[in-house]
Amino acid sequence: MSQNTSTHLGLIGLGKMGGNMRERLRARGVTVTGYDRDASVSDVASLAELVAALPEEQRIVWVMVPSGAPTRATVEELAGLLGEGDIVIDGGNSRWSDDLVHADLLAGRGIGYLDCGVSGGVWGRQNGYALMVGGDAEQVAAVRPVFDALTPEGDAGFVHAGSTGAGHYSKMVHNGIEYAMMQAFAEGYELLSTSGIVSDVPAVLDSWREGTVVRSWLLDLLVKALHEHPGLSDIRGYAADSGEGRWTVEAAIAQGVPTPAIAASLFARFTSQQEESPAMQAIAAMRQQFGGHAVQSASTPPA
Amino acid sequence: MSQNTSTHLGLIGLGKMGGNMRERLRARGVTVTGYDRDASVSDVASLAELVAALPEEQRIVWVMVPSGAPTRATVEELAGLLGEGDIVIDGGNSRWSDDLVHADLLAGRGIGYLDCGVSGGVWGRQNGYALMVGGDAEQVAAVRPVFDALTPEGDAGFVHAGSTGAGHYSKMVHNGIEYAMMQAFAEGYELLSTSGIVSDVPAVLDSWREGTVVRSWLLDLLVKALHEHPGLSDIRGYAADSGEGRWTVEAAIAQGVPTPAIAASLFARFTSQQEESPAMQAIAAMRQQFGGHAVQSASTPPA
Repeated sequence: MSQNTSTHLGLIGLGKMGGNMRERLRARGVTVTGYDRDASVSDVASLAELVAALPEEQRIVWVMVPSGAPTRATVEELAGLLGEGDIVIDGGNSRWSDDLVHADLLAGRGIGYLDCGVSGGVWGRQNGYALMVGGDAEQVAAVRPVFDALTPEGDAGFVHAGSTGAGHYSKMVHNGIEYAMMQAFAEGYELLSTSGIVSDVPAVLDSWREGTVVRSWLLDLLVKALHEHPGLSDIRGYAADSGEGRWTVEAAIAQGVPTPAIAASLFARFTSQQEESPAMQAIAAMRQQFGGHAVQSASTPPA
Repeated sequence: MSQNTSTHLGLIGLGKMGGNMRERLRARGVTVTGYDRDASVSDVASLAELVAALPEEQRIVWVMVPSGAPTRATVEELAGLLGEGDIVIDGGNSRWSDDLVHADLLAGRGIGYLDCGVSGGVWGRQNGYALMVGGDAEQVAAVRPVFDALTPEGDAGFVHAGSTGAGHYSKMVHNGIEYAMMQAFAEGYELLSTSGIVSDVPAVLDSWREGTVVRSWLLDLLVKALHEHPGLSDIRGYAADSGEGRWTVEAAIAQGVPTPAIAASLFARFTSQQEESPAMQAIAAMRQQFGGHAVQSASTPPA
């Protein structure tokens, strides 16, 4: 840990993830200067102040803000504040193709760039985060004490996945896999619940937690959810999607890789997000046309 | 364990699963008389001898033979050998609808019937098997010492899922979920492998084993497989299906439950089993018809 005590990180974005990461880093000996637009949680008043607080010989700044425009704006501002040999890490949920742009933008000023996919959610502060990093090996080595403080105890939970973008790409695929695993359990849950012969669905799922092929953290979470929400009767069947499922399927299209289960899982979420299905309205309308099948009236007639 | 020492089980079928179960049961204090058509592993020469070896007050016979005709024939033979109050357990991979037939057949002679889905494969002997049981609660209680000897240490790994058929139904859904989980990891593996920026795919997967949402036994197995078979280059992309995936989708159809991820996973295996795809031959042929697109010649012309 003596190595960590000399590490000083600038951390931008102290929301749910960034705030927890600051706590974990400090608890493990890393000096953290944090900046957030919310002054009540921020250590400094501006990015310029944050940069000024960091050691001049090499400033390391971790960006943990929403992906897209907020991350782009932050990277652009840092390009004007940092210099030769400094390193920016984007730990947010950026699309991997953005990393190529950000790396180029910073490289023009001699600033290094690493992309880092972070997994672990709200559990990460206690258990550690799984990190997937893309970029140059020398820069990865320079930031290693920070990575080591964030990952779980032991060897697992860190990977230098490849060149720029490979960290976020790996995290994106992780999330795509997560979509299909969740859909797998969801479909199994619905089958068990509507079978007519399985009388204790939570007990069946609970019994799978040891000695079976499907044992997993997601199964543990489903069992927990069913205990906290019997029959899930207080939960609406609406599933948001956070973008990474879409990017995964877009990557599949770009690479020509068949991903039927991940795509089906994404589309199932889209279906859950619809108030009404234009496609099924069309099916119903066509059935009426060719066979005189009855249609159900929409509760709200189409405009 | 004093309870177990008084338990005496008849076990029919001493193949890979049945043979391991006999060892685990004996190691944990259950007396087992085993029968197999293969005399070299069998304790007795016939089903009649097996039944004669069991305690007269209540004979408990576990059937562990291939599903379908072999199980049906065994249950029918047992119907003629057992009597009032005895119990037959089908621990094979029977379809849950067969259980309804077997239970009726035995009930006519006063013989009880439990269906038991068994998960754990070759690891079960050491780690214990997860058991999902359907049938009458009193009969479940009578066989409980046997179940306890088979399940892992601790409370997990056993469930009385519901009425007759519920055990095999639950196991079937477990396997359907397994299909989609495997497909999820498989699709993620292919995306990572063809991304062009991820340079160490096994290391990425390995890094997910702690602190991530997708951590699971199947992920552990995929990492192990990639270490034993670098690049999977010695493994052909052919995936068999053992019937339970098909039954799961048939149950989904019977119940009117949408299972897009499980169905897609099953169909992906069917695709892998084809030497040539008549559907894709038809697509290629239609593209040629309407647009003059080039077709590739089949290496073996159609008969």
